[in-house]
Amino acid sequence: MSRTGPRFVPAVLVGLALSRLAAAQSDPLPSWNDGPAKQAITRFVADTTKEGSPKFVPPAERIAVFDNDGTLWAEQPLYFQLLFGLDRIKVLAPQHPEWKTTEPFKSILEGHAEQALAQGDKAILEVMMVSHAGMTTDQFNDTVRKWLETAKHPKFQRLFTDLTYQPMLELLTYLRAQGFKTFIVSGGGVEFMRVFAERVYGIPPEQVIGSSGVLKFEMRDGKPVLVKEPKIEFIDDKAGKPAGIQRFIGRPDPRVRQLGRRSADARVDCCRQRCALHGNRASHRRATRVGIRPPVEDRYVEYRVG
Amino acid sequence: MSRTGPRFVPAVLVGLALSRLAAAQSDPLPSWNDGPAKQAITRFVADTTKEGSPKFVPPAERIAVFDNDGTLWAEQPLYFQLLFGLDRIKVLAPQHPEWKTTEPFKSILEGHAEQALAQGDKAILEVMMVSHAGMTTDQFNDTVRKWLETAKHPKFQRLFTDLTYQPMLELLTYLRAQGFKTFIVSGGGVEFMRVFAERVYGIPPEQVIGSSGVLKFEMRDGKPVLVKEPKIEFIDDKAGKPAGIQRFIGRPDPRVRQLGRRSADARVDCCRQRCALHGNRASHRRATRVGIRPPVEDRYVEYRVG
Repeated sequence: MSRTGPRFVPAVLVGLALSRLAAAQSDPLPSWNDGPAKQAITRFVADTTKEGSPKFVPPAERIAVFDNDGTLWAEQPLYFQLLFGLDRIKVLAPQHPEWKTTEPFKSILEGHAEQALAQGDKAILEVMMVSHAGMTTDQFNDTVRKWLETAKHPKFQRLFTDLTYQPMLELLTYLRAQGFKTFIVSGGGVEFMRVFAERVYGIPPEQVIGSSGVLKFEMRDGKPVLVKEPKIEFIDDKAGKPAGIQRFIGRPDPRVRQLGRRSADARVDCCRQRCALHGNRASHRRATRVGIRPPVEDRYVEYRVG
Repeated sequence: MSRTGPRFVPAVLVGLALSRLAAAQSDPLPSWNDGPAKQAITRFVADTTKEGSPKFVPPAERIAVFDNDGTLWAEQPLYFQLLFGLDRIKVLAPQHPEWKTTEPFKSILEGHAEQALAQGDKAILEVMMVSHAGMTTDQFNDTVRKWLETAKHPKFQRLFTDLTYQPMLELLTYLRAQGFKTFIVSGGGVEFMRVFAERVYGIPPEQVIGSSGVLKFEMRDGKPVLVKEPKIEFIDDKAGKPAGIQRFIGRPDPRVRQLGRRSADARVDCCRQRCALHGNRASHRRATRVGIRPPVEDRYVEYRVG
């Protein structure tokens, strides 16, 4: 074999590797298949960010809102926040001997959480109230932070904050690079999500919109605190979502649309391999349909798993 | 006279003018007197923005909140939003013949607004509900916008959006240039303030926190709308202010303080000439005391007229 052979082959390989690297670097959404949803996203961004385009949106008005559960992170077998609530019941049980004989706590403490939650919305609400209220916002933040640092997902045995969707993280980064402010608009508890949203998604607390309980201002030991009361203030779900967007974002020309799960108008397979890694089966099935609603006309865009 | 004289004198004048121009350009707060408040502000900014300083705040966490009435714009003889409400009563009167004989409307329509409002909080609330509810958010925005474009302040005979405090506008610009997000946290109505806050103060709608009514999602002629209901959702005043800051901004380590009018801990004369131009006598008296609370320790800082 002459010396030109081996020299020639590595050069080709290096060339191939460099060209793949260049493609990856130039594609801001490498985990997305080339399909109609990816095309709609990149077209939407091109239309709204190009000066002179009829759909141009000035940088200050570029806002994109995302659901969280089942969209940015997984939500099976139960909403992660509900799993947090169930864990808290176990931690708090020694202070509540009466729970041994009171539902839904009895079933939860005996390891039958599904049976407990099958008792209906009232049971779920009771779990959430007991686990989320009666403490200051700082105490709650600390509790959630510690839980997220140690608790493992029942199936994947990984931290909950690992169970995010890579394609959606790329989408967040891509939109921010194009001047969009990224917001979460979720039925989840606003204080629960804010603990991890900045670190995990790059979404600062002031851009997280969620459900909330009433807060009571108090002085404790000469220091001001806000106590989380067991009283619902706002449910950021269904018809509450456009109201939440108006309340927190409130641009005068919002063209907000009702945000339903079932009317996604664009579909695409996201990268199956990464979804399978980061989600679970049920969430994966849903993650394969990514709805862009509306694709180009609105300033508030919800990219959601439909 | 030799030619050197005239040449020499203008050179001195030009030199003086240039040096004043340079001073103005280098001073981000030219309307502020050199006093303890200005010093506290510039020291606060230096401490929080210099990397390595023990009080350094990362750019993403730099947030400054401002009251609006009597702080960013004037509030005498009545809150401007209440003057808007009174004007609306007159516009809506033809559709409400019963108001001719019903208080507080009767007194308002007969030109005795102060007499009407002296009837107490219930009368004021009634004026606000009638003038602010029963329409969509878009309709309300349009109504406020048109009013602001034409209505004149009863004493100064100028547009209300002209009656802002120049020193505070400089402070907003200065803080933003240093990486702070500037928020309004006011007892005023959130939708009322958002109509002008971006244009007048450079504060985008999503950074305006205020009092709000319940919003109802509806479809009208196939289009989604949000209807403002005559029902209070949240009063962003007194103990409601720290709750509002937590609800809308919600950083895990907020160190929010109770925001009272009477405990300003720093004073300074702002530029009297400009205050006199932009405010009125009562607001001017108050604008001469600018409280910085707390001056250096907190990430949420309220610069307020005390």
